[in-house]
Amino acid sequence: MSNVVKIREVGLRDGLQLIKSNLSTESKLIWVNKQVSAGFTEMEVTSFVPPKLLPQFSDASEIIIKSNKIKKLKPTALILNIKGAIRAIEAGTKKITFVLSASEKHNLSNVNCTTDQSLSMFNEIIEVSKDTKVEVAAAIATSFGCSIQGSVPEIRVLELAKEMAKKGACEINLADTVGYANPKQVKALFGKLKDQIGNVPMAAHFHDTRGMGLANVVAALQEGVRRFDSTMAGLGGCPFAPGASGNIATEDCVYLLESLGFNTSVNVDKLLELRHYLTDLLPNEKLEGRLGVAGTAINFKKKLL
Amino acid sequence: MSNVVKIREVGLRDGLQLIKSNLSTESKLIWVNKQVSAGFTEMEVTSFVPPKLLPQFSDASEIIIKSNKIKKLKPTALILNIKGAIRAIEAGTKKITFVLSASEKHNLSNVNCTTDQSLSMFNEIIEVSKDTKVEVAAAIATSFGCSIQGSVPEIRVLELAKEMAKKGACEINLADTVGYANPKQVKALFGKLKDQIGNVPMAAHFHDTRGMGLANVVAALQEGVRRFDSTMAGLGGCPFAPGASGNIATEDCVYLLESLGFNTSVNVDKLLELRHYLTDLLPNEKLEGRLGVAGTAINFKKKLL
Repeated sequence: MSNVVKIREVGLRDGLQLIKSNLSTESKLIWVNKQVSAGFTEMEVTSFVPPKLLPQFSDASEIIIKSNKIKKLKPTALILNIKGAIRAIEAGTKKITFVLSASEKHNLSNVNCTTDQSLSMFNEIIEVSKDTKVEVAAAIATSFGCSIQGSVPEIRVLELAKEMAKKGACEINLADTVGYANPKQVKALFGKLKDQIGNVPMAAHFHDTRGMGLANVVAALQEGVRRFDSTMAGLGGCPFAPGASGNIATEDCVYLLESLGFNTSVNVDKLLELRHYLTDLLPNEKLEGRLGVAGTAINFKKKLL
Repeated sequence: MSNVVKIREVGLRDGLQLIKSNLSTESKLIWVNKQVSAGFTEMEVTSFVPPKLLPQFSDASEIIIKSNKIKKLKPTALILNIKGAIRAIEAGTKKITFVLSASEKHNLSNVNCTTDQSLSMFNEIIEVSKDTKVEVAAAIATSFGCSIQGSVPEIRVLELAKEMAKKGACEINLADTVGYANPKQVKALFGKLKDQIGNVPMAAHFHDTRGMGLANVVAALQEGVRRFDSTMAGLGGCPFAPGASGNIATEDCVYLLESLGFNTSVNVDKLLELRHYLTDLLPNEKLEGRLGVAGTAINFKKKLL
């Protein structure tokens, strides 16, 4: 299996979704540029959701247009429905990630549709994107459990994954936004996923809500996952557990991967400089992540860019 | 391999070593009692070090005497030299943990002895304890790297472990107080340790300094480790990284283990009550650990006591 791992920064989307600070477009672009100069080639820079609901993403089109001009970067956007997909495609987004929930109750609460309705919508999005060069990734939220429904049947996650892969998803991302996953479950589910989606790449989106985020990364690596979402300083949070920590921290995840001998092509020092910049940019947010406080071990082999 | 895992709370020792708050003997005993009622059977309740250096442990003998009266509990103490061992034995300690460092530089800085001198001292301690019923465990600090020396040769860790096991250590504990370990290294080192120490149980002592604490627990479990040290709310810290997080958090570790299907015999709800009590007891300390904020998942199978 390859030792190359791609980390996709989703801080500008998942990290900003719940917080109160409102970042200017200019600040967002400084963040993007700093992260690209640390070695990132893919970043989810925005979400095409109704600006009335989430005003922090009202500059979605502008961010995409400007990020598209940054060398070496593939900016991506999250979408929840066909309207968002059309807006994203019109703005020139090269890759969009469509999200639905494996939990019926969560999907209803999140997007007011049944999972089957969301699945039909995915098919429409694939149709709409067919004549463009836009890649469509599929993310399945609550793949490891749901804070409304509790357990989520593996079989449902696998069905959804298989169907979306067959229809043309460029990637299947199993997401644990509520922090319910444990390493045993992660190993089991990704192990089964491989058999369902053929050559379509697997990705994982873990939160650290209950402290198992990096342990879940290690479990997913063992099953061949080589794409991970994360956010700088673990920004994000959980809508169902106020005050709880958010995504796995990018800097900790990169450090883990490099320590294990994987190649992320990321310069950790530059990432820590970016984290420092974020402390100024988001003075009212609690920044998580251990590496930002402890620093690297003195025998850590740093990557030079 | 057994699915029974024993977690040893070391918060009253490692957790109090660096912090400024001074807990009264009475408060410490309330803590001990609460943790025993949550299901704990082993706790490192103190350290027999010179009271002048660490006044927070000046009640070491009293804590041992009083903890010995608590049903179902085996109170243990940390010692660094023969003097401490004698004091611990005189106080009636049932199990003592002797610590030395695999890193020469760390051992010199920590106890002002070469590692070989510490090893001789271990032999003396075994002699002194021979006619008593006291169990002597051996912990090897900086087993996974050292913040002064950098890398620590695996061969040195294994030699020390083999020697102390042969001489009568009741347990070999590989410790990572500085947070240098990664899961790959943990798997490799415990894998080799098994061959060196025969039937002597292995234990692990991880800090979460760089976020890999629980991932390291999972790696150690895979190699058959069934004894782990941890501290409530991740108390502890790292003398070489001011402000950095400390030990792995007991409540998060229990939750991980139970989620993986291991049996810790611990009631998570009672543990979270204890954590809440600690927020009052240690108002000036930063409490870590994710579970205390997020709570358990709604489908988590709770243990009833």
